[in-house]
Amino acid sequence: MLKNKANLYKQFTHGRILIDIAESVLKCIQPDQLIKKAVQLKRNVLTVQGDAYNLSNYKNIYVVGAGKASYGMAVALHELLGSRITAGYINVPAVPKKKIGSIIVNKASHPYPNASGVRGANNIVELVQTATSDDLVICLMSGGGSSLLPLPIQGITLQEKASLTERLMKRSADIFELNAVRKHISAIKGGRLAEAAAPATVVSLIMSDVLGDALDVIASGPTVMDSSARADALEVLERYKVGSKKIKKIISEHETPKRLDSKQVHNYIVGNNHIALEEISYAAKQHKLNPLLLTSTIRGEAKDVAQVLTSIAQEVYDHNRPVKKPAIIIAGGETTVTVLGNGSGGRNQELVLAAVPLLNKRMTILSLATDGVDGVTPTPVAGAIADGGVAEQCVVDGINYHEYLYSNNSYHCLQQLGCLLYTGPTGTNVGDIIMLLVR
Amino acid sequence: MLKNKANLYKQFTHGRILIDIAESVLKCIQPDQLIKKAVQLKRNVLTVQGDAYNLSNYKNIYVVGAGKASYGMAVALHELLGSRITAGYINVPAVPKKKIGSIIVNKASHPYPNASGVRGANNIVELVQTATSDDLVICLMSGGGSSLLPLPIQGITLQEKASLTERLMKRSADIFELNAVRKHISAIKGGRLAEAAAPATVVSLIMSDVLGDALDVIASGPTVMDSSARADALEVLERYKVGSKKIKKIISEHETPKRLDSKQVHNYIVGNNHIALEEISYAAKQHKLNPLLLTSTIRGEAKDVAQVLTSIAQEVYDHNRPVKKPAIIIAGGETTVTVLGNGSGGRNQELVLAAVPLLNKRMTILSLATDGVDGVTPTPVAGAIADGGVAEQCVVDGINYHEYLYSNNSYHCLQQLGCLLYTGPTGTNVGDIIMLLVR
Repeated sequence: MLKNKANLYKQFTHGRILIDIAESVLKCIQPDQLIKKAVQLKRNVLTVQGDAYNLSNYKNIYVVGAGKASYGMAVALHELLGSRITAGYINVPAVPKKKIGSIIVNKASHPYPNASGVRGANNIVELVQTATSDDLVICLMSGGGSSLLPLPIQGITLQEKASLTERLMKRSADIFELNAVRKHISAIKGGRLAEAAAPATVVSLIMSDVLGDALDVIASGPTVMDSSARADALEVLERYKVGSKKIKKIISEHETPKRLDSKQVHNYIVGNNHIALEEISYAAKQHKLNPLLLTSTIRGEAKDVAQVLTSIAQEVYDHNRPVKKPAIIIAGGETTVTVLGNGSGGRNQELVLAAVPLLNKRMTILSLATDGVDGVTPTPVAGAIADGGVAEQCVVDGINYHEYLYSNNSYHCLQQLGCLLYTGPTGTNVGDIIMLLVR
Repeated sequence: MLKNKANLYKQFTHGRILIDIAESVLKCIQPDQLIKKAVQLKRNVLTVQGDAYNLSNYKNIYVVGAGKASYGMAVALHELLGSRITAGYINVPAVPKKKIGSIIVNKASHPYPNASGVRGANNIVELVQTATSDDLVICLMSGGGSSLLPLPIQGITLQEKASLTERLMKRSADIFELNAVRKHISAIKGGRLAEAAAPATVVSLIMSDVLGDALDVIASGPTVMDSSARADALEVLERYKVGSKKIKKIISEHETPKRLDSKQVHNYIVGNNHIALEEISYAAKQHKLNPLLLTSTIRGEAKDVAQVLTSIAQEVYDHNRPVKKPAIIIAGGETTVTVLGNGSGGRNQELVLAAVPLLNKRMTILSLATDGVDGVTPTPVAGAIADGGVAEQCVVDGINYHEYLYSNNSYHCLQQLGCLLYTGPTGTNVGDIIMLLVR
């Protein structure tokens, strides 16, 4: 999966194990692997994490979805159900094939929604509206679904919705704030897709890229009861000083569904950051390294998170605690970057660059976005790796990493140093993973 | 030690244990306790961490020192050696008694040096200069010593030195940068005190408040070979755009000692952050709580450190890892605060306030400066405590903690909420300690 593995192998001889583990984890969290683990079909009974759905009870099976991992999920589901799928429609960022059996694959846009996304979302709503109480609607939701499945509420244009989202993102609104607003100007998010599918049975298979797996946040929760109210959405607009009078009026008039029939709608997390971290932990043990799985909900400014993680690494190195050497400190989640400069980079790259001066010769750090896209960079970069030798290399090459860090230009610094990880879009998305090896 | 213990006990019923542990730790890290552990006298032989000094070999014993904990260290040493001490002189921030036996106690100033500090430093240098190869000079060094022991190099006034230090601090120069400069414009720091005492034997008892216990950083290392060179000092001035031509010229002409006789000079760490964390760990076990001692070198922006620590607490709460509930997550070191607003507060208060919205009902956080002085506040505050109930209390009382946090006004927010810890100056100083209880 790593396109530049040979070069990385050459440069990071001490940290090779992290490169190997990163690759094996990316394989384990591919949507087809996760769907196979969560969903089985036996004698016409579909079992989803222990719950049985007898397919004899359903006339039609519809498959809909949106997100960065939803293409792979659809492929796996089609392998399982094949021609039993009556019809389907998914909105995804890349389209290897235009149809997966009877499932139509539509190219939509991320992180900013486009008109094709709206057409697809419309088709999805129309499709599930045809479903009756004799039908089964399977939703395949994953991270990125918020922008890949746009359907502005009547009275608001996509342009208005998109520019509102963009302004909130630029003001560093977090995912919870962003979604509270998006759901209240959407005709499909915040449980409205499940509402449209009623009275059909809805089985939603969800891959989480959200801290703590808050169901109503992932892809803005099209099949999940919204825990935010219109008052919350209005408060966010107030806090960040965005949103026209018209938008505020529309929000104040539309509340998301506050009740969904638990016999009709069933949500399942089939993949999340935890699973990735557990795979790392398992792989570490296989390689006789002691894993310290710290948290799957890491958050905070990337460069400060780097300081904390390396301080723990220092404790391991100096005192063999809280875990004995050789060890891998493991964390996952999503850090943030407060953009002050005008450089290029991403959360994971900035975290690694901030760690550079804090690593000694026995430490290697690797941080990557499991979707393969770490922030907005000229070339898509998944993340980065660095060891204690990188700071020395900077001195030799006359590279002032502090300056790059302060101008949020981690990409151009790490590129020169050969520290970037290239995967291309991975087709999966369970947030970021961070590994810190201490030998 | 906690002046408002009764109130804290009432308010934080779930977190009482943290209040108890904080108190017991503050007792354990008192200078007299630490000196007694490190130094023993038996049959005229002084043993310091295993090294023996036969006092019969020495004509005179001189005791000098500076720092927030040096008064207590002098008391303990005087208890041990009594009239064997020929003479002594220490510079400290508070003067309970003007003489400890033959040791003169001089009030100097922190964090900005003053003229009394200079007089004391002069006296100290003159005293040790009288020592011969038959004499023993015992130095008692602790955090705060940098500003409590000022002796500008010839050609620079205290005012010039002080304003340079102040400007560097305001520009957020770190302790390493600050000391590289201070040592190169000092006639006593960076090993120059040991140089002045030669050829006498020097035994330096050091209490560390510095991350990683870098000997040459604590109190700017008066008895320790300086690892920074004049070029480093000049680079710092360049980086922060401070320092006159005259100062730069003087620095470029004076190098700190780059060699000290290891037979003559002996440095011992008698107390540090580690010891405090180990005491917490021990106390936790006594109370049947599982300790997770993360690191004694924690660093980074206070509010981001709060995010990382609470994310680990969340993992403990949700998944019983990396340690089983009930647990105390333990960390020590020194975080930083980038001041953007004009409120009052300190590192520890800001860390606790940032944690408030991230705590659930089973979590309590306590963070304090072991010297009892957390940043610059109207009243000296040691730190703060908060649990999952505090965020709810904010809602009830209409307190917008976000606003207080963004204006660096943690003091005024936590004061209203009854979350502040008052100890007054504790007479010791081993950096900050953070405890996060998860039940």
